[in-house]
Amino acid sequence: MAHLLSTSCSLNISPSCKKPKCLLVNQCSSSGFPASFSLPTSTSRSKKLILHGKGPKRSSTIYAMAVSLSQESKAQPGSSFPQETGEAGSPKKVMVIGGDGYCGWATALHLSNRNYEVAIVDNLVRRLFDHQLGLDSLTPISSIHNRIRCWKSLTGKDIQLHIGDICDFEFLAETFKSFEPDAVVHFGEQRSAPYSMIDRSRAVFTQQNNVIGTLNVLFAIKEFRDECHLVKLGTMGEYGTPNIDIEEGYITITHNGRTDTLPYPKQASSFYHLSKVHDSHNIAFTCKAWGIRATDLNQGVVYGLRTDETAMHDELCNRFDYDGVFGTALNRFCVQAAVGHPLTVYGKGGQTRGYLDIRDTVQCVELAIANPAQRGEFRVFNQFTEQFSVNELAALVTKAGEKLGIEVKTVSVPNPRVEAEEHYYNAKHTKLIELGLKPHLLSDALLDSLLNFAIKYKDRVDPKQIMPSVSWRKIGVKPKTVAV
Amino acid sequence: MAHLLSTSCSLNISPSCKKPKCLLVNQCSSSGFPASFSLPTSTSRSKKLILHGKGPKRSSTIYAMAVSLSQESKAQPGSSFPQETGEAGSPKKVMVIGGDGYCGWATALHLSNRNYEVAIVDNLVRRLFDHQLGLDSLTPISSIHNRIRCWKSLTGKDIQLHIGDICDFEFLAETFKSFEPDAVVHFGEQRSAPYSMIDRSRAVFTQQNNVIGTLNVLFAIKEFRDECHLVKLGTMGEYGTPNIDIEEGYITITHNGRTDTLPYPKQASSFYHLSKVHDSHNIAFTCKAWGIRATDLNQGVVYGLRTDETAMHDELCNRFDYDGVFGTALNRFCVQAAVGHPLTVYGKGGQTRGYLDIRDTVQCVELAIANPAQRGEFRVFNQFTEQFSVNELAALVTKAGEKLGIEVKTVSVPNPRVEAEEHYYNAKHTKLIELGLKPHLLSDALLDSLLNFAIKYKDRVDPKQIMPSVSWRKIGVKPKTVAV
Repeated sequence: MAHLLSTSCSLNISPSCKKPKCLLVNQCSSSGFPASFSLPTSTSRSKKLILHGKGPKRSSTIYAMAVSLSQESKAQPGSSFPQETGEAGSPKKVMVIGGDGYCGWATALHLSNRNYEVAIVDNLVRRLFDHQLGLDSLTPISSIHNRIRCWKSLTGKDIQLHIGDICDFEFLAETFKSFEPDAVVHFGEQRSAPYSMIDRSRAVFTQQNNVIGTLNVLFAIKEFRDECHLVKLGTMGEYGTPNIDIEEGYITITHNGRTDTLPYPKQASSFYHLSKVHDSHNIAFTCKAWGIRATDLNQGVVYGLRTDETAMHDELCNRFDYDGVFGTALNRFCVQAAVGHPLTVYGKGGQTRGYLDIRDTVQCVELAIANPAQRGEFRVFNQFTEQFSVNELAALVTKAGEKLGIEVKTVSVPNPRVEAEEHYYNAKHTKLIELGLKPHLLSDALLDSLLNFAIKYKDRVDPKQIMPSVSWRKIGVKPKTVAV
Repeated sequence: MAHLLSTSCSLNISPSCKKPKCLLVNQCSSSGFPASFSLPTSTSRSKKLILHGKGPKRSSTIYAMAVSLSQESKAQPGSSFPQETGEAGSPKKVMVIGGDGYCGWATALHLSNRNYEVAIVDNLVRRLFDHQLGLDSLTPISSIHNRIRCWKSLTGKDIQLHIGDICDFEFLAETFKSFEPDAVVHFGEQRSAPYSMIDRSRAVFTQQNNVIGTLNVLFAIKEFRDECHLVKLGTMGEYGTPNIDIEEGYITITHNGRTDTLPYPKQASSFYHLSKVHDSHNIAFTCKAWGIRATDLNQGVVYGLRTDETAMHDELCNRFDYDGVFGTALNRFCVQAAVGHPLTVYGKGGQTRGYLDIRDTVQCVELAIANPAQRGEFRVFNQFTEQFSVNELAALVTKAGEKLGIEVKTVSVPNPRVEAEEHYYNAKHTKLIELGLKPHLLSDALLDSLLNFAIKYKDRVDPKQIMPSVSWRKIGVKPKTVAV
């Protein structure tokens, strides 16, 4: 815990930030032992840092001097980027839980750029997982503090930062009461299937963290902001691979002469995917019982690095995971191609899934926020744009490599997962298109937004991280550290 | 924690036990601060009590002198009760998790009587809930220690006792390694829908306790007893009230010209019922990924007090809950009739559910154990014998009251739950019948096993416990104590 505080006290201007006007905190004093702290980027000269803790003193306050740029910055907002506000009457204050992560960071910047008032809530544990497992993003990423300051210096826009764990309800309640969100985008879960299959304690952590965190968000909305729209990230993996078409959340069934529309049956295949299934059931109940308004975005596999906003400055660069635990299939393939490693196809390679560009992730979330669910509605969108088998992805990367003069080989490795390797797959994904989604298709993105980035950063690749290190069948009860 | 230990040290012969040859522990000493302890009913004169704890000393041992009766008792087994062993080759060692509870205690005795070797695993937290909420069983119940000793003195049969929390994997692992079960019957969950809707912390407790406990059981089976059959108590409430027939766990769906058999869609309506939905999904996955053999018993509402075994002695008497939190509908109605309180029908009273006699609960569990699931099979049985609406139950109790000369009135109270009060309901329940279940029907049980018992114990009724005290809509984030 103590390191969080010392981090907050050592904020300074990043040398690489071209506009050196980031918020400077140059003095602070503290007492107590914080479990979490909130750092609003401030327009005032002297700013309280509110500390929420579980120590003997439940709450304490430290004072930080802030050299404010906001007045100046606001006079010259980053005018080269889209500044449209959402529709009249649409929510203005958005809490992005997990806003320091891969999808969350891109989303927070996109919403801020679109003039939503954004607060990031994150406990930064994703960064801890990398330390513990000996992994690292392909791209160098800045601290969340420097990211936010850099964004402010470039655009004049404030993003609030609340560092803490949403499983700690006292912390979450305070963030709700102080920020008063109109919408909550909830990315704040352990999001890796292999991570959840490393050992018993990580399986338990994944379900406990994700399910309880989401329950707390639901209770916070009910108690403090009952009109707030929950935009929750689910996963296409909740559906598994049924032998019938996958619908968006619900299916109409005629059975023994009667008909009803029911939740689509779920067949998740990791403790992570299961945690999202549990969330979906919990959220659906609270919509019905409490009138919560919720949108469940059953997202496919996300690929890509750049969004308009993260491309503005190196300090805003997003993370890019290629390792066997957090790396998604296509990102990993591009890194493998870049360093001359054979593409590792698990098993027969017939596993088919929905995919989308991270630029579409941020678009979809904004569409959901701008078109909120009704009171009591549990709305489910399948959030992907195209579906591919693993073999098709490997062929696409091979072909793209040829255009860049890279020879790409493919190797089949024993499948560490338990999943069908040849199966029917046809998943609907029309609702977000109907709301206005304009997809970025993979064929276009592969060269300009993916493979070239992998090549740019190939010197940072650690080949030890590439191979699968987690087995669905061999998971045991003893704590395990992978990739040593 | 300390009271657990002191309980274990103050064991003595119960004055009401007609065969005063219960195991006597008359001397003990201790050190450390146990989180759990194991009390095998012993045939030896001096017996170790193994303590598993989280204090500075992880494990400590206390010695107890035991006056053993087992040699003598074994020479004269309770010959007036059925002694058939299960079929040849069927499992012999059964761990009953939650074996001190309403269904668990009746099941543990029934299995012991049927010559299964039984170990009860329980943290006794159900008794703590009563203390905390100011509730009490209608029937006086003995401590688990006295219950087990009385059973031993009457039948000569040992039931092992392991007191601890299955959410503590270290404890659970030790019980698995020492007992080596062939089957695990898992009743060890927080099982009240209203309890889960009291406040945020109890909602979170219910899901955390139930989901993590079951995950631990699955990991323990995988790691230590991979042939062990898990018999898990689910609930009919997982299905909700769809407008089509409810099948047993799975439904075959034809959609857009293709057909698949998928998990039946779940629409649970409390955080408790949702926890069972989560369990079902988790178990299904481990059957597929690890080859776990599991039977999910989606049980209806249980009523009744007596089983052949609990009727043998007052010290074996089961608990009987009639309060607004733990009392099931029919049991509560009988108590209300007995004390002249109007039957409290929630809302319109058209809520229809499956019901069964506790004598059928124990029969069903034994049938599941004697006919285990295959490796990798996730088998689902709907465990109830008849379905009734609340209004039908009220009418039956009124009619039964008339026969006993009691005038019974019915009152509609505002429904504290969020549920359909008029709906279609037709749930299949043939699989246990096919395995040999011979149902006890309500019409027969109402007078001889229910209403007369309620009258017998009516002086113990606390009228303050009867009315619903928990609202599905008003649940808040602040800790709440009901029934003060």
